[in-house]
Amino acid sequence: MKTLDRPLVSSCRVSLFILLSLTVLPGRTLGQARKEAHDPATDIDAIRAVLVAQQEAWNRGDVEAFLNGYWHSPDLTFSGTGGISRGWDGVLARYKKNYPDRSAMGRLDFSDLEFHFLGPDAALVLGHWHLKREKDDLGGVFSLVWQRFPEGCRIIHDHTSADIDQTSSE
Amino acid sequence: MKTLDRPLVSSCRVSLFILLSLTVLPGRTLGQARKEAHDPATDIDAIRAVLVAQQEAWNRGDVEAFLNGYWHSPDLTFSGTGGISRGWDGVLARYKKNYPDRSAMGRLDFSDLEFHFLGPDAALVLGHWHLKREKDDLGGVFSLVWQRFPEGCRIIHDHTSADIDQTSSE
Repeated sequence: MKTLDRPLVSSCRVSLFILLSLTVLPGRTLGQARKEAHDPATDIDAIRAVLVAQQEAWNRGDVEAFLNGYWHSPDLTFSGTGGISRGWDGVLARYKKNYPDRSAMGRLDFSDLEFHFLGPDAALVLGHWHLKREKDDLGGVFSLVWQRFPEGCRIIHDHTSADIDQTSSE
Repeated sequence: MKTLDRPLVSSCRVSLFILLSLTVLPGRTLGQARKEAHDPATDIDAIRAVLVAQQEAWNRGDVEAFLNGYWHSPDLTFSGTGGISRGWDGVLARYKKNYPDRSAMGRLDFSDLEFHFLGPDAALVLGHWHLKREKDDLGGVFSLVWQRFPEGCRIIHDHTSADIDQTSSE
């Protein structure tokens, strides 16, 4: 019976190992991947860093660098009183048209950021924007939808409003 | 040996059954759950149905029923030229203030809907809105962030803009 039993037990052990590998090991790996993919505190820091870089780029007059916070894709969308602008180039053109020079660009400040995670790889960020300019100040609210990419979190959709009576440059 | 072998084999079978239950059965259940949780075509149909119900409610003057499309929560947010309205009651109050009667409400039409899924349980929907009224027409674009709840997909954030020169009732 031994010669018959051993392969059976051995076969059981192999099966157990394979099945344990299928259950426990991928479970652990998946858990780790999930942790890496969705740590809200880290994501908030990363998104804040992108927004700070945007502010700094804007305030030195570098609109292209400001646009680095956006998804570099023809599917990027930007909504506002002018309708929907499409694609990274389209959004860049919109900014350049509405803010043709440093005096129109003024000094940008983001504030009152609110983070709402929409799953492991997406977030909604609400906030206020304020432009301090020599002639007039502008301000309003924005809704940014972020998605995780290999290069980091990027804005895939921006909906920005200017406060009433400030819509000409929104 | 038989008395010894049988429990071993039997124990192996039980272990295999338990492990198979842990791997295959939950795998199947999870697969089904995933399919149920993230079938884009079904989700698009469900969201379209909510928006159609909203249009119908609006066009019969029932603002409360229109609000059924929104997450019934104090954390619901609505952004626009008036800033950020908060909570289901706050959004309802905003609508009632901006559209106090049937003539202000006009006839609502949503169009050009675009769906972008943000994970298994969230979506971004872009679109255009148009209000046909006796005195004037209004229109613009909206960005709706949806999340799945046990009762179905609901809007958790709405950012709506009116086209330029139409912002008074946006």
